[in-house]
Amino acid sequence: MVSATTDERLASAADAKLTVTDGKASLSKDEQLALIRVNLAEFMNPEIIEKVIDEGRHPRIYWGTATTGRPHCGYLVPGLKIGQLLAAGCHVVILLADIHAFLDNLKSSVELVEYRAKYYRWAITNMLEALGVPTEKLEFVLGSSYQKSPAYIMDVYKLASVVSEHDAKKAGAEIVKQSDNAPLSGLLYPILQVLDEEYLKVDAQFGGLDQRKLFTAAKEWLPKLGYKERAHIMNPMVPGLQGSKMSSSDPDSKIDLLDPPEVVTRKIKKAEAAPKVTEGNGLIAFTEFVLLPAASLRGGDFRVNRDRDGLEPLIYTDIAQLRADYENDVLTPQLLKPAISTALNAILAPIQAAYQASSEWQEITTKAYPAEDKKKKQKKVKDKGSRYPGAGKEGGQDGKTDGAVDTPPQQ
Amino acid sequence: MVSATTDERLASAADAKLTVTDGKASLSKDEQLALIRVNLAEFMNPEIIEKVIDEGRHPRIYWGTATTGRPHCGYLVPGLKIGQLLAAGCHVVILLADIHAFLDNLKSSVELVEYRAKYYRWAITNMLEALGVPTEKLEFVLGSSYQKSPAYIMDVYKLASVVSEHDAKKAGAEIVKQSDNAPLSGLLYPILQVLDEEYLKVDAQFGGLDQRKLFTAAKEWLPKLGYKERAHIMNPMVPGLQGSKMSSSDPDSKIDLLDPPEVVTRKIKKAEAAPKVTEGNGLIAFTEFVLLPAASLRGGDFRVNRDRDGLEPLIYTDIAQLRADYENDVLTPQLLKPAISTALNAILAPIQAAYQASSEWQEITTKAYPAEDKKKKQKKVKDKGSRYPGAGKEGGQDGKTDGAVDTPPQQ
Repeated sequence: MVSATTDERLASAADAKLTVTDGKASLSKDEQLALIRVNLAEFMNPEIIEKVIDEGRHPRIYWGTATTGRPHCGYLVPGLKIGQLLAAGCHVVILLADIHAFLDNLKSSVELVEYRAKYYRWAITNMLEALGVPTEKLEFVLGSSYQKSPAYIMDVYKLASVVSEHDAKKAGAEIVKQSDNAPLSGLLYPILQVLDEEYLKVDAQFGGLDQRKLFTAAKEWLPKLGYKERAHIMNPMVPGLQGSKMSSSDPDSKIDLLDPPEVVTRKIKKAEAAPKVTEGNGLIAFTEFVLLPAASLRGGDFRVNRDRDGLEPLIYTDIAQLRADYENDVLTPQLLKPAISTALNAILAPIQAAYQASSEWQEITTKAYPAEDKKKKQKKVKDKGSRYPGAGKEGGQDGKTDGAVDTPPQQ
Repeated sequence: MVSATTDERLASAADAKLTVTDGKASLSKDEQLALIRVNLAEFMNPEIIEKVIDEGRHPRIYWGTATTGRPHCGYLVPGLKIGQLLAAGCHVVILLADIHAFLDNLKSSVELVEYRAKYYRWAITNMLEALGVPTEKLEFVLGSSYQKSPAYIMDVYKLASVVSEHDAKKAGAEIVKQSDNAPLSGLLYPILQVLDEEYLKVDAQFGGLDQRKLFTAAKEWLPKLGYKERAHIMNPMVPGLQGSKMSSSDPDSKIDLLDPPEVVTRKIKKAEAAPKVTEGNGLIAFTEFVLLPAASLRGGDFRVNRDRDGLEPLIYTDIAQLRADYENDVLTPQLLKPAISTALNAILAPIQAAYQASSEWQEITTKAYPAEDKKKKQKKVKDKGSRYPGAGKEGGQDGKTDGAVDTPPQQ
């Protein structure tokens, strides 16, 4: 199916405003590990990664996403982590799970899924370029490029023979819809995702904390086929911008990577955010997991303008002070929202510039999201960067997600 | 993996005593259908087969067996049905499920499984030749020849996406071990077996009545992928020669196709058979489903010698009279057993002659069942012609099987 080289990818992103932090390659082992650990909820078997670094190799880490919908600003959460991994000198493999996407909606054509996978490549590549991280070690792999191969399928059959139904169900408990009437594929997906670690030849897999049971299963299952155990790094589950109220039918419920500045500002303005409450606050979470790390990657800070009140700006380099100020109402939602809009628009600007400069990307977008499907498409765009299509847990646990920051339907 | 043409197969069977009933091609439609229906427990959607005959085509029918053990005389039960199908002008495809066999025991080497699949070919081909049916329309297909292909695996993924876990479990309820700790492959096998109908391009699938739920599922599932529904023909479940007492650790518990006449006679002599009781009587069942139809295919009868009592032989062409005589104790177990031994040895003689004449078959036998594994092998040889490896239901329901007539450990 789709196949593009790293060169093509780099060429396609050439128009993007690019701030490659070249110095990163000279990081010490401790600095590398520190950058890998930033904001993680858990790092299972870090010794595997440490050994790779000791051997002078670049840790190879994969993150998967089903190409069902359209990457939105929620993708900036795993995107930042991927950016940190790249900055730490890791080789990052992004699995575009096109077969999964196709299986999610068998009515969609294979061609449409191919276009969407291409769109994902363009969007994610330019998103990472926009974060200013080096992307020479960024690699995209289509699931269809190996998940239909005889060797892989024999391993699917084999693993299904040594893993019990109970264990497969347990592994997918948090990420696959669990009911008697759920499709059988839900029990098969954990098998596939575990094998992907071997077939992508990685040292670690990265995902949200909701993947923990699956990652634990991977550690147990791969050795059953004689394959080595991998490390696993997990992002925490973060609340969406709008808190737990999410409406996939509301076209305003997500910020697209290509939304113009005024639309971004309007959507952020509508975001739910109680004053003084940081727990479950989507604005705070987005700042913590996207805006502050993005600033940090560039060696900058996150600023809150207070000109309106005739005050100096609030300047943050870590979340602790920001949280404290918010809880004390020094930093009000009314102050925070415009600061978030400004910072987010600054990240989106080079992505949108790259889009405007690339007739190829524009053409693919038209094919991937045809206008005649517009209404239907907006209903479908509830993908949250989840590996599993049709997982049926909208918003993840308690409206949290590993990669989704959905804009709110209302303030 | 293994791949042999029909020509090779025919050549390999050339040494066997061959009594091809050439006249069968000129059977009327009603005669063809009557021969297909003999001894069936059920024929679902016969109109599909009738239509094929009306169109002047040869109905293409498949039967599958996992090449886990070693075909024994129990295989004569489905073998007779296959013989009748061939005699009725059908094209019979025998699926040698080598992948299933490999998955049943991941410790066995791929080579061993290949040799066993070859042994199955030799044994089954010669068994059918020995029954005197035409075998030009007999075809062997290895599961591995297509079950690892990209097209097939995409359909496995697709079908798993539209079939619920509940329905997959229901479809395999009678044939796959059902427990929480059962391997996940048990839920995958029904998906594969249903797709096999499409990939083997058959008009019908043949199996034991224990396959009924799976066959019903096949009718429902294939149209979900846009494939046509097939007909299904089912043998009844017949008791093993030894009734419900079966011991796979007893080397005498099965009659091998290559057992010499005196061994066959000894094993039959030890068979459990209460006088006057025909229900659940393995000897009566074997006569009904193997010996009488085999005699019928050759235009002959089943004879019970009574020289010892100075009486004329009892001559049977149908089971009703034989049953009546047995229930009245006219036909005693002591009379029936030698008659069965004689008739069975007559069927086995040409198979064994073919074996003696073929150094290739002998060589494959040595490789397929190496002497050093002898003890282990005998423990493993509990395959009953079941499609499913490790089904874990020894002897099927209540000691009955669709293709297994196991010789008894004791009288």
